[in-house]
Amino acid sequence: MDLTAARERARALDEADPIGFARERFVVPEGMTYLDGNSLGAMPRAVPDVVRDVVSRQWGQELISSWNTNDWWSAPRRVGDLVARLIGAAEGEVVVVDSTSVNLFKVLVAAARLRPDRRVLVTEPGNFPADLYITDSVADLLGLEVRRVAPPDLAAALGDEVAVVSYSQVDYRTGRAYDLAAITAAVHDAGALMVWDLSHSAGAMPVDLSGAGADFAVGCGYKYLNGGPGAPAYVMAAARHHDAVRQPLPGWTGHAHPFAMEPEYEPGPGIDRFRSGTPPMVSLLTLEAALTAFDGVPMSAVRTKSLSLTRLFLELAEEVLTPLGFTVVTPREDDERGCQVSLRHEEGYGVVQALIARRVVGDFRRPDLVRLGFAPLYLRHVDVVSAVEQVVSVVETAEHQDARHRVEQTVT
Amino acid sequence: MDLTAARERARALDEADPIGFARERFVVPEGMTYLDGNSLGAMPRAVPDVVRDVVSRQWGQELISSWNTNDWWSAPRRVGDLVARLIGAAEGEVVVVDSTSVNLFKVLVAAARLRPDRRVLVTEPGNFPADLYITDSVADLLGLEVRRVAPPDLAAALGDEVAVVSYSQVDYRTGRAYDLAAITAAVHDAGALMVWDLSHSAGAMPVDLSGAGADFAVGCGYKYLNGGPGAPAYVMAAARHHDAVRQPLPGWTGHAHPFAMEPEYEPGPGIDRFRSGTPPMVSLLTLEAALTAFDGVPMSAVRTKSLSLTRLFLELAEEVLTPLGFTVVTPREDDERGCQVSLRHEEGYGVVQALIARRVVGDFRRPDLVRLGFAPLYLRHVDVVSAVEQVVSVVETAEHQDARHRVEQTVT
Repeated sequence: MDLTAARERARALDEADPIGFARERFVVPEGMTYLDGNSLGAMPRAVPDVVRDVVSRQWGQELISSWNTNDWWSAPRRVGDLVARLIGAAEGEVVVVDSTSVNLFKVLVAAARLRPDRRVLVTEPGNFPADLYITDSVADLLGLEVRRVAPPDLAAALGDEVAVVSYSQVDYRTGRAYDLAAITAAVHDAGALMVWDLSHSAGAMPVDLSGAGADFAVGCGYKYLNGGPGAPAYVMAAARHHDAVRQPLPGWTGHAHPFAMEPEYEPGPGIDRFRSGTPPMVSLLTLEAALTAFDGVPMSAVRTKSLSLTRLFLELAEEVLTPLGFTVVTPREDDERGCQVSLRHEEGYGVVQALIARRVVGDFRRPDLVRLGFAPLYLRHVDVVSAVEQVVSVVETAEHQDARHRVEQTVT
Repeated sequence: MDLTAARERARALDEADPIGFARERFVVPEGMTYLDGNSLGAMPRAVPDVVRDVVSRQWGQELISSWNTNDWWSAPRRVGDLVARLIGAAEGEVVVVDSTSVNLFKVLVAAARLRPDRRVLVTEPGNFPADLYITDSVADLLGLEVRRVAPPDLAAALGDEVAVVSYSQVDYRTGRAYDLAAITAAVHDAGALMVWDLSHSAGAMPVDLSGAGADFAVGCGYKYLNGGPGAPAYVMAAARHHDAVRQPLPGWTGHAHPFAMEPEYEPGPGIDRFRSGTPPMVSLLTLEAALTAFDGVPMSAVRTKSLSLTRLFLELAEEVLTPLGFTVVTPREDDERGCQVSLRHEEGYGVVQALIARRVVGDFRRPDLVRLGFAPLYLRHVDVVSAVEQVVSVVETAEHQDARHRVEQTVT
């Protein structure tokens, strides 16, 4: 299939796309092919009006009374319930608070405390670095040992000394997806608890935490949830753990009687106990507005489209990019990948910079990874073809060699 | 002095107010006397345009590249430097991140680790409850003991087993201010480290952390800094501690080489090591815009005006409110109070509710405290007189008795 034929096929796929309407819910900058929604999601059109209202009316005019009149107080749980629908959790099992790292800290300590006679935390060597740092810190504070075990090697590493296993469902570099249900089951069989980081899966593919019986999860609000830069993150704790769990960052907003200002901590009901300080309301309500982009969009359709986008890209990459020195890193098996495709190229940094100059925006991960995210709510199959065409053109004109000394793009 | 004479005097004081111009930098809702800036500061007029730009242009149009093009990356330190000027810290000693509770957790663990052979954390029984909960949690994790010692009793409690003392500079209930320099010196004399919570002082009075040689401080962005609901908080760490300090919530944004994505944590330079996850940029840049309200406003003038406002209120309260059943809780000595005045009244809850119905907005703290904050940047002396008049009128008409069953106002 040449690129002209690919474009024809892409047009046909886009015309038949049952969630093609969702693109209209986003601002996609004119002339830009935005393939970095795995880092910072595009802005939903619903956002600006809501933010204006939050700032100018709710804060500016109603001031402190907005905690009641605009129900700021319930927002962490209310937005948590919106996230719950995307990750297969029940109402009341998710709260939106703090950052992913801070939430992972809470959850790891809380989980380890539920297995007081076990001394090992398992994470994976390729986990997002901050997840590794937090895991090490938790082990240091609790006097535990960390083992870094890649998911394929987990079975051999599970034993009755393992308290908690903590993995990312989708690898942030390679885009590889792990089997959430199977891993959770294996961890439970070993008597341990399972913590998932959903930052690179939630909003891009169906996640069924309840079905898998997962214990805890955390994730990011600003990637496929499109909540804006640094949007607050979330914590999921299965309801069966709520009464027993004790997290290490107790705050007044998570107290059973927050306005009694009691000198001793008494954890609030349900998921509330994972709340700490006052949440950043402008960012939190931005995320709430952003999540309306998922209204009426079944996650199964999101997944179907995501696989269709990445399948097309992989097919074209195999044909026209591997001859140019690219190696596909992301698994070709549908079940084994998330929503991004990563390519290795020895001039990867220059390739990404040259693409950005052409307004094809992906990102780079050292030493040689070109990461391209295919957010299914606002990307089309024709964008996939454009991306491939631009990569070809960059390499054929050697623009990536001119671009290799550009200042590094900062990405998250 | 009757209230008519008081209003005359108030008008004269307002006319002579050298920072009267600052009120124009805020939106003060028509007909409202807003005395809750100690809970949620009023909105600076600079905010809406900045927020619109952050959302619609920086995020919506420039997307991921804003980390560079709009320098989102440096924002926690850049806004930290703005806060540093208000609290007497040096450039590079303050970073804006996370919530006050989360930051207190980081700082207490970090400080305790600098005194590994000492086993006691001192806080005060009347500290903000979340500060107590966090202190207890830190002690639990590190195997330390907490002693709750009121500041006047501190001298007798200091000994070589005390690792860290952590106090709020201004009491959130009574408005009592403690002597930051004297307490810090006493703590240092005992070989311990001092942590200040500046939530109820920063932005309302000069704070001189460097002059006092304070070790660490934390504080809130949404009270007298006017950063909006749940605005990110800040951490101050004296430069002399930067190299040695190790905080328990390491994140990729605080890494020495954040984009290398290294599997081991290596703390970044200076105050950066107190950064954890990705900051909520919309809320953070809202705070940055809000802080322009302090441009050209000397903190000494802020304090002079604050004392003048609270002095007038105290004088009138003594004359016209004590006969109505109110007791003044806040110290009359200028040196001993911050920027709020608290009154006890057995019907305090009803009083606050009835005042809110008249658009005089203060708040209530159990069991019987009426808290009134006099934010000097946007309040006038005539507002003080109005507040007193309204309190008198509420009680004389027994409105507070009708209001006692209204739903509780949610406040922070």
